[in-house]
Amino acid sequence: MRQSTLFSKTRREPPQDEVSKNAILLIRAGFINKEMAGVYDFLPLGLRVINKIIGIIRDEMNALGAREILMSSLQRKELWEKHFNQDRWDDAKVDNWFKTKLKDGGELGLGFTHEEPISNMLEQFVSSYKDLPFAVYQFQTKFRNETRAKSGIMRTREFIMKDLYSFNIDESAHQEFYEKAKESYKKIFERVGLGDKTYITKASGGTFSEFSHEFQTLTSAGEDIIYITDEEKKEAINKEIGGESDGREEKAVEVGNIFTLGTKFSDPHLKFKDESGKEQHVFMGSYGIGPARLMGTLAEIMSDDKGLMWPVAVAPFQLHILSLENDSMAEDIYKKLEANGIEVLLDDRDLRAGEKFADADLIGIPYQVIVGKKSQDSDLLEVKERATGETKELTLDQLVKTIKG
Amino acid sequence: MRQSTLFSKTRREPPQDEVSKNAILLIRAGFINKEMAGVYDFLPLGLRVINKIIGIIRDEMNALGAREILMSSLQRKELWEKHFNQDRWDDAKVDNWFKTKLKDGGELGLGFTHEEPISNMLEQFVSSYKDLPFAVYQFQTKFRNETRAKSGIMRTREFIMKDLYSFNIDESAHQEFYEKAKESYKKIFERVGLGDKTYITKASGGTFSEFSHEFQTLTSAGEDIIYITDEEKKEAINKEIGGESDGREEKAVEVGNIFTLGTKFSDPHLKFKDESGKEQHVFMGSYGIGPARLMGTLAEIMSDDKGLMWPVAVAPFQLHILSLENDSMAEDIYKKLEANGIEVLLDDRDLRAGEKFADADLIGIPYQVIVGKKSQDSDLLEVKERATGETKELTLDQLVKTIKG
Repeated sequence: MRQSTLFSKTRREPPQDEVSKNAILLIRAGFINKEMAGVYDFLPLGLRVINKIIGIIRDEMNALGAREILMSSLQRKELWEKHFNQDRWDDAKVDNWFKTKLKDGGELGLGFTHEEPISNMLEQFVSSYKDLPFAVYQFQTKFRNETRAKSGIMRTREFIMKDLYSFNIDESAHQEFYEKAKESYKKIFERVGLGDKTYITKASGGTFSEFSHEFQTLTSAGEDIIYITDEEKKEAINKEIGGESDGREEKAVEVGNIFTLGTKFSDPHLKFKDESGKEQHVFMGSYGIGPARLMGTLAEIMSDDKGLMWPVAVAPFQLHILSLENDSMAEDIYKKLEANGIEVLLDDRDLRAGEKFADADLIGIPYQVIVGKKSQDSDLLEVKERATGETKELTLDQLVKTIKG
Repeated sequence: MRQSTLFSKTRREPPQDEVSKNAILLIRAGFINKEMAGVYDFLPLGLRVINKIIGIIRDEMNALGAREILMSSLQRKELWEKHFNQDRWDDAKVDNWFKTKLKDGGELGLGFTHEEPISNMLEQFVSSYKDLPFAVYQFQTKFRNETRAKSGIMRTREFIMKDLYSFNIDESAHQEFYEKAKESYKKIFERVGLGDKTYITKASGGTFSEFSHEFQTLTSAGEDIIYITDEEKKEAINKEIGGESDGREEKAVEVGNIFTLGTKFSDPHLKFKDESGKEQHVFMGSYGIGPARLMGTLAEIMSDDKGLMWPVAVAPFQLHILSLENDSMAEDIYKKLEANGIEVLLDDRDLRAGEKFADADLIGIPYQVIVGKKSQDSDLLEVKERATGETKELTLDQLVKTIKG
């Protein structure tokens, strides 16, 4: 993409109404726009990152054999009030509902999660043990009426969430899937570039079960405290159920969670006949990841005083060409790299070299190719790695290989 | 995909609470689920169709040079009330808002369109004529508090909309883009399979301009009346501004619309300095398509008493293998076709042949390969085209060529 055709711009000064590092950097670099506290828009660069993260998660969900669906945000009151005897409609029990009204009467909610509607929907499809097991997931916009909304895109009032739900005949079958889901989650955090700093963390199971597991990534921007119990296995325990004696204390952000729900949301309606013909309730689990929270976490962790530093797998573009003094050569390299399947942003704007360097470091595309005077005399490209600052001279083929890994 | 792993099922009986043909067929075939009147979930087959349609629209938007973004649903009251002197916050002026409340006070709206927030957002990026022209688009969930919600997925209270907004220095530059957008829209409707029945229709410009253009597709399920003024050029006029003397009267559904907004949403805030240094307001246009409405229209038009008949370009799968009496051969064909880049649904369920035939016709994947006894003796595959009912014997290579066109 030619940067001259990208309507968004960088800004030198931080926005005045932001305290979180991720939002400040992402706004300055032109990735997001703030609509109001806790509500952001994704500009082209930001949307590309979100879509890369979504692509990785989708990949791993499909590898798990889960099927993708898309449910509504609008929620019927009755379903949450009575259907599963949970009464999560009640504001005293769930304190972050956004509610609204139908014009022809009747109250609706904006879904903050989907256990109730998905269990209800599945009643029509599940009747026998032969219909199980399966798992479904979606990338769907959740609404949560947060009072704290000071963590940039790590905690917002409206966000795309990947929610996965599993349906098994019993606890042991569930446990098998749960372990597979854990492995999928590990792969996801590794692939987006957070593997090193992410700990599988034993946490409270809430009202559903004794324990759940969170994936916690170390960052001072996190709202959680964890104790690292095994550095090698990357295991930890959340402060809510652990104590100082359990290990090293760290601040961390919950980038994913997996829950055993049991039959809380299948009792009494979602049931099947087992092999002996006896009615049983489906055994459920739920598994969440917020792509924008991963993006915010990456911005917190992978950045320096010059700006962002995206890992190749989630970068908005893999390569940034800075055309300084030889536009036709830059254009030529741009076309060749795109033909090689590399995603390239070409800075073809009429700006001073210093401004282009500063913008490129702020935006944080992992590789920069600087096309200046020197480039005219040689087949070697001057390639700077954003994260390390190292500069190398590479042929076009070497560069393609470096990026594609 | 193996059909045995697809949790959704077909049903023989129509749902009792639906009157629209598209919803009845799509529910029976397991493409969608009804949450409440005017609110539907997309099951795996339905989501695949929606994503195919979105892919085609995105393709054409990118070819136009438009940049993709994603804005929030939650809307600040102030922006709609005062910012552009439109006061579209007022329920007396806009009668389909869903509104909600922040926990810490303050009313919010759920966006039914995005002219106000996008103009507001762009103020930070536009200051000179050099920043123009550009266009941005999104696939974003809109909310509309409809009282009429009886047209299945053709008119719903919550739906993904592709909204494109264009920004130009003046009316003549705008007009040039507007004509290009018209051509993009024509391509989109041709590619999804609605080209033959879709008419570019002169309509009222509402409060924005004298005229707008709608893309109207002929169907008895449509809520509009148009008069066809030129059959060859596929031109028509909407009854709201036309009369019987203009041409042949038809019922039609508005599958897309394009609007000249002028400076209604840029005045007074979104402005730029022209070449002479004089301040001007940006000249805007907006352009909408609802992917689910296209899907519903396809279901209305391309169906018979046996079920749906998807065009290849938007079908959930391109090919349906019905494994009747030779599972290992079916499996073999399945793998070979997938290796050739064909999207295949393999009916590997333990059901009678008659049920598989009926389900395949209901689901409406364009090509069916029947793997029965006969298939054992020959290298030729028995291929049925769903739309025509014609059966041919083809080699695997011939089949791949037929599908890929």
